[in-house]
Amino acid sequence: MTQNSLNMDIWSRGWAIILAGGSGTRLWPMSRSLLPKQLLALNGEKTLLQQTAQRLLGKLPPERIVTVTNEEHFFEVCNQLAELHPDLKQHVLKEPMARNTLPAIMLGMDRISLHAQQPLVGIFPSDHMIGGQDQFESDWEEALNLADQDWFVTFGIPPRKPETGYGYIAKSEELSAKAFRVAGFVEKPPLDKAQEFVSGGTHYWNSGMFVIPGKAFLEAVEELQPDLWIWWQGREATPLADGYKGIPEISIDYGIMEHAGHLAVVEAGFKWDDLGSWEAMFRMGDKSDDQCVITGDVLALDCRESLFFSSGGKLAVVGLEKMAVVQTRDATLVCPLDQVQRVKDVVGRLKAEKSPLVEAHVTVRRPWGSYTVLEEEQFYKIKRIMVHPGARLSLQMHHHRSEHWVVIKGTALVQVGEQEMIVVENQSVDIPKTSMHRLSNPGRVPVEIIEIQSGPYLEEDDIVRFDDVYGRSPAGNTPEDQ
Amino acid sequence: MTQNSLNMDIWSRGWAIILAGGSGTRLWPMSRSLLPKQLLALNGEKTLLQQTAQRLLGKLPPERIVTVTNEEHFFEVCNQLAELHPDLKQHVLKEPMARNTLPAIMLGMDRISLHAQQPLVGIFPSDHMIGGQDQFESDWEEALNLADQDWFVTFGIPPRKPETGYGYIAKSEELSAKAFRVAGFVEKPPLDKAQEFVSGGTHYWNSGMFVIPGKAFLEAVEELQPDLWIWWQGREATPLADGYKGIPEISIDYGIMEHAGHLAVVEAGFKWDDLGSWEAMFRMGDKSDDQCVITGDVLALDCRESLFFSSGGKLAVVGLEKMAVVQTRDATLVCPLDQVQRVKDVVGRLKAEKSPLVEAHVTVRRPWGSYTVLEEEQFYKIKRIMVHPGARLSLQMHHHRSEHWVVIKGTALVQVGEQEMIVVENQSVDIPKTSMHRLSNPGRVPVEIIEIQSGPYLEEDDIVRFDDVYGRSPAGNTPEDQ
Repeated sequence: MTQNSLNMDIWSRGWAIILAGGSGTRLWPMSRSLLPKQLLALNGEKTLLQQTAQRLLGKLPPERIVTVTNEEHFFEVCNQLAELHPDLKQHVLKEPMARNTLPAIMLGMDRISLHAQQPLVGIFPSDHMIGGQDQFESDWEEALNLADQDWFVTFGIPPRKPETGYGYIAKSEELSAKAFRVAGFVEKPPLDKAQEFVSGGTHYWNSGMFVIPGKAFLEAVEELQPDLWIWWQGREATPLADGYKGIPEISIDYGIMEHAGHLAVVEAGFKWDDLGSWEAMFRMGDKSDDQCVITGDVLALDCRESLFFSSGGKLAVVGLEKMAVVQTRDATLVCPLDQVQRVKDVVGRLKAEKSPLVEAHVTVRRPWGSYTVLEEEQFYKIKRIMVHPGARLSLQMHHHRSEHWVVIKGTALVQVGEQEMIVVENQSVDIPKTSMHRLSNPGRVPVEIIEIQSGPYLEEDDIVRFDDVYGRSPAGNTPEDQ
Repeated sequence: MTQNSLNMDIWSRGWAIILAGGSGTRLWPMSRSLLPKQLLALNGEKTLLQQTAQRLLGKLPPERIVTVTNEEHFFEVCNQLAELHPDLKQHVLKEPMARNTLPAIMLGMDRISLHAQQPLVGIFPSDHMIGGQDQFESDWEEALNLADQDWFVTFGIPPRKPETGYGYIAKSEELSAKAFRVAGFVEKPPLDKAQEFVSGGTHYWNSGMFVIPGKAFLEAVEELQPDLWIWWQGREATPLADGYKGIPEISIDYGIMEHAGHLAVVEAGFKWDDLGSWEAMFRMGDKSDDQCVITGDVLALDCRESLFFSSGGKLAVVGLEKMAVVQTRDATLVCPLDQVQRVKDVVGRLKAEKSPLVEAHVTVRRPWGSYTVLEEEQFYKIKRIMVHPGARLSLQMHHHRSEHWVVIKGTALVQVGEQEMIVVENQSVDIPKTSMHRLSNPGRVPVEIIEIQSGPYLEEDDIVRFDDVYGRSPAGNTPEDQ
């Protein structure tokens, strides 16, 4: 009983900040800048963000879970979290621009400070794979207890191999059966050092997860990051975007942890992987008899130790070994598993060509639902558009294109000019160019329509918004549609 | 002058039969049963069939080039040949069913017999790659001169390697600088034999091309293939399909050549390849600096001696060696070049699953144009339909689906029920289920429409045809649309 009531006490001071602002493309062609790794369902039905939030909901109520993301991913993050628990999306914060992890955490601390004097704040990246909920919770509790004694706590992963791309934590004296004082940090060591770290049992991988005592943490920021502190102190007087622009880009590791005095590491008993490459996806995936990890519509003959992933079309693979083949509807990657880090070169080349394949899939998520480009030619474009129940697109107008809508599922409410009409399945509406129009879903099930655009200019930026429930800009100068 | 007038004489008796009835899928996913190798543009802008006809047009007028194909490919063969020369499609014959090469040649001989007493008939497969027009013509002329002396002439390709999948021709006494009497045929020899053939210089690959003296050839058929001869003699009295059903399946090689007495081989001075696999496509293709053959939207980093082909979407390949990657809009193959013969296993598996990927591409050619399936779900299907100028689909009706048409290019003439209307770009028409309807292109440029089908059953066989200018069956029991 004593033990339990003590635990309850600690958990009642527990808060979490989920960092969901990453936009990596190391899992291209699956991950794109508009749909980065944390927003993908890579190892099951739930996305990594959803798995992260689900894990935290095991111990915390939704109102003590704060998620920080950016403008581009805000609506998708909200939608994904709402699928888990409707209250989670009340606590999603939007960074005006990317400033690395420490400013993002300070945004979260701002929200937490409104509600708690002595919070013990867990900081969790949203794009890692973690296995073992019980072990995770018990390690987290260990960290909370340490944070309660004003330790800044890191989670250290026992290294499985001499990975040179990670940061390492050196441990010193034992604080408990699974916690140690931190002797120091080593960022991306050379291979011989990394090998020593692994064989010596003296170092952990830095998981990027932390539990910090809120009050002491803010004091450390004041002391160690005076520029950031000045912004933080005056944050209510300045619009967020203006203030944020001026603060330095800095990570919590460099900015605080490496200089903090009272630093502990909890040895993680849970399974952890950052799923930072297709090689990691292979390593962590469920294997077939031939040691292959296979997802989607794949026909594999005599292949071994390979990763095959298709989310678009049939993938037939024959006689492959130690290979990664990843197919999406508009792009395919084929690469030996031990060279998948070169995806960054592919993405770099595509960026240089200004290829849209870096940014978005053929299906693009929007606050009101999603659209899928089915075909695009010089003078026409065909999209399937899905609108969530109760959602509506902006009231808008195009200068250069007329549109033609056919409802294929559900019931739509369509405004053209001053007229509003209900359009049901297999009915259609013409939207002449320069007409104001709006598509809404007044029903209880998703609406799907086929939109056929035609005109001499069909880019997404030919849009004038008159009214938008999602507060988006009137001119279409973002990579946004509708 | 004498030489020239002699040549003109020989050529004036020259005829050609193009064999275009194959339906192989060894180049899957590019080749499908509805679009086999000869109908694909694999090594340039023209299809292999078109290249074959073009080559023959170098020496023969179109009315002396007869093409034999089957029901399934008839319209596509006609369309492709018409692009080269409008008269070519007047001489395309349709086999009622596949009966191997000898009956197909006899169909061609039937047409030729109407016009010529002493024809010298070249027989040419439509799915081979041939390089060197001048050399081809001079070898063909050599063969014509031999056929004029009643030789049955084969073309022998000097073997480049001990290929065990081909037939070989053994040569004996020299008839001219590049012609020899044939000593015999060896079909698919074991490797040691094939090696002997290559090193001995005594054998050629059998190219499957022949030049035969028409009259002597028919006499040989009478003598060697009495069943076939009976059909041939009575062919005018019986409907073709009924008569054809009863004749034996037999190749010209087995049925005639291997038993003919007066048999010559002309050593081919032209380049030849049967393009029978992706490995051959690699071998014959133009190489990059890294010895790769690259076609389509491919990004290759550090790859060597590989074949990359994309006709649908971006293909990014990294660090591959001796690999074939072939991507189409709905299927991708990845396989080491030295295992590409296993495509047949892939196709076998897909056939067993009744996969439509064996039969057709997302774009299907029809006599009136083509359609492309853009998306297919349980209750709706979206197609882009292209109708050639002057062409019209059948007058038809569907029991289970309604259709919605939006014109995106050109001007369509649409009949719905008793009503006819002109529909221009970005206008649309609803076709309720059970209404008779017909789409025509009355104009001078292709019409393109987007068709959205919806209903509980969307298969192609829900079609009742009332009138069809292409003479197709009233009920939709073939893999045909519209």
